[in-house]
Amino acid sequence: MKAINLDYSAATPVDEAVLQEMLPYFTEHYGNPSSGHTLGEKPREALEEARSKVGRLIGAEEPGKNQIIFTASSSEANNLAVKGIIAAGKKKGNQIITSAIEHFSILNQLKGLEKEGYEIIRLPVDKYGLIAPGLLEEAISDQTILISIQAANPEIGTIQPIDELAALARKNEIPFHTDAAAAAGGIALDVDRMGVDMLSLAGDQFYGPKGSGALFVRRGVRLRPLIEGGIQEKGLRAGTENVPAIVGLGEAARLAYETLEERAEKVAYFRDQLKESLFNEIPHLHLNGHPEKRLPRNLNISVEFVEGEALLMRLNMAGIYVSSGSSCTSQALKSSHVLEAIGLPPELAQGSLLLAPDRENRIEDIPYITEQMAQVAGLLRNMSPLYHQYLKEEKKNANLQ
Amino acid sequence: MKAINLDYSAATPVDEAVLQEMLPYFTEHYGNPSSGHTLGEKPREALEEARSKVGRLIGAEEPGKNQIIFTASSSEANNLAVKGIIAAGKKKGNQIITSAIEHFSILNQLKGLEKEGYEIIRLPVDKYGLIAPGLLEEAISDQTILISIQAANPEIGTIQPIDELAALARKNEIPFHTDAAAAAGGIALDVDRMGVDMLSLAGDQFYGPKGSGALFVRRGVRLRPLIEGGIQEKGLRAGTENVPAIVGLGEAARLAYETLEERAEKVAYFRDQLKESLFNEIPHLHLNGHPEKRLPRNLNISVEFVEGEALLMRLNMAGIYVSSGSSCTSQALKSSHVLEAIGLPPELAQGSLLLAPDRENRIEDIPYITEQMAQVAGLLRNMSPLYHQYLKEEKKNANLQ
Repeated sequence: MKAINLDYSAATPVDEAVLQEMLPYFTEHYGNPSSGHTLGEKPREALEEARSKVGRLIGAEEPGKNQIIFTASSSEANNLAVKGIIAAGKKKGNQIITSAIEHFSILNQLKGLEKEGYEIIRLPVDKYGLIAPGLLEEAISDQTILISIQAANPEIGTIQPIDELAALARKNEIPFHTDAAAAAGGIALDVDRMGVDMLSLAGDQFYGPKGSGALFVRRGVRLRPLIEGGIQEKGLRAGTENVPAIVGLGEAARLAYETLEERAEKVAYFRDQLKESLFNEIPHLHLNGHPEKRLPRNLNISVEFVEGEALLMRLNMAGIYVSSGSSCTSQALKSSHVLEAIGLPPELAQGSLLLAPDRENRIEDIPYITEQMAQVAGLLRNMSPLYHQYLKEEKKNANLQ
Repeated sequence: MKAINLDYSAATPVDEAVLQEMLPYFTEHYGNPSSGHTLGEKPREALEEARSKVGRLIGAEEPGKNQIIFTASSSEANNLAVKGIIAAGKKKGNQIITSAIEHFSILNQLKGLEKEGYEIIRLPVDKYGLIAPGLLEEAISDQTILISIQAANPEIGTIQPIDELAALARKNEIPFHTDAAAAAGGIALDVDRMGVDMLSLAGDQFYGPKGSGALFVRRGVRLRPLIEGGIQEKGLRAGTENVPAIVGLGEAARLAYETLEERAEKVAYFRDQLKESLFNEIPHLHLNGHPEKRLPRNLNISVEFVEGEALLMRLNMAGIYVSSGSSCTSQALKSSHVLEAIGLPPELAQGSLLLAPDRENRIEDIPYITEQMAQVAGLLRNMSPLYHQYLKEEKKNANLQ
């Protein structure tokens, strides 16, 4: 039985080297970093080492200059960024700018804030999922207290021009946050070059453990903690630090940093080969997202005339694991707000598949994947009234010519 | 070199059996529980298995009846309970009742709420740290929207009469939350017998991993999530589930449940033997907390005429690890709000030590611990002007007689 994972954006396994770094912190070095005795020393050092490794991955390694707050997920980091800025209330105003294609950990909290009276501006995107800096410029007002725009979209892979967007925020002295959960560890990031004030990331996106995340916070940005209590993370995130997970995040960040180009190249090559093969062998495929400005680990296609969910199930039976959209909503079976925002017609949105390969995928598997996909698409199309209608019309058109 | 940990309330190591259960979920079963394909199945099942194990530990195993929300710490669970109830706004009013000796993850958020206009009533405790139900009864008003009182105090070990307190809340239809971080896994808990609506716990208090916690929520209690986003944990806590940590929490809960009495007996016996030895050999010791109603893993003593911090450091050099109070504040070197609340004079509070033994501690080590403690206490007392003054007065008194 084949087992080919094309859904690494849902989760990556923990790298064996990362796990080895983590292991001693479960048993041998299990102390609490806040302890004043010997048992606290090694865990405390490990936290700071991990902090500098994560800093290096995003160009924020200078100690003491900025802050990296460890969280349990990028969702938590996103909540800390948005709610933390608002609760700190440094800048007066009631307007928050975001995009229409953010992750739910941004959009859902903004919905709540909207009910509380905040004005939320959700910038539209073009057909590739790109945000035009001009639109942000127009939206900014003296009421804007926060701009939060993702570095790259987890569903269609589109990479935003964060440097241009953040420059507009800086010109207007508005804190700029970017959700880099899908981007970090996959493409090169540099908080200074990007010009962002806050950045969220998650370790399980690049071979680190689940339950590990971080929020970069530039010096001078004031936050109120989401989880209040003890003085951990300089008072910005209470609760005993999850030392093994943080150590794992640090090591995964180090590995990601050191192998970034090589891995990105390998993954993009596989992705492109797979795309070519699928588009050659299967008619009526449609690429979603930007043709070039996209994450290496992202191939989002719509298979016309079929349901993505049905494709997913049939491919699963063939040992090929794909997703029909964001893993956070796949169980909810809702239609994708991202595909809607890029203007994809519902019939194409319903047939969308996210193929997210990573370093484990082998070129040799492409023929099998293609064959199975062609077979499943053919089977499902044969059962589709829409497809038969299309064929009939095609025939009629041919006869007319 | 000796290494005797008497600070297990700061952190327990992960039990080897717990770690073994966790390991496959880092690498082999690394899928995202939200995934619709095969890789999501095993992690999804593991979550539910862990949920029922945690439920059993606290008498809440009936599936579907109530909810157990996995968090990354008891601090997060405490924040979710308090902020979640308030944000849900089901009950109208502006008063919250708590105790003067809660953990900072309760007290610090309530300080914030106080600034926002909520009235916070902090019930006083007696010299043992006990809350009189009569005081709660008096404090309850039609404005009370939440009562949060810890099951046991992590610093002085006092176990509260939660059943009596919660009964008053129920009579008045006020949601009752208990922070059971220090109690869970250490003493028998039953949410129905206790009559609580919400209960927080943390895995690293009973040989589970750091980064694992849970909030029990009784059916009918409405919460707004702290971390908003995806639909994980029935929409009450967004972010990819930390599957390995949750599996570890579940297994630790199972082991704690199955060995509870045996472990509690063993730990209490060690604690009592240690206490007897110390009190026999060292003059001017003072027991803090209740003589009987206390956690097995708690011996809080004040060593008159010396500073707790100095004791901690000297004992550390002798390979004995103790804490001078709550591990969340030990680095802040603040005086303890708990010792203040039980009316301990500052000179005794300064000399307080928390000895928190657990199943690893061996009776054979008690003579060494006692000897070192006596030596260190003697040394520090010799350097203490207060002690010399005391001796002078004693002498004078003796001469007068």
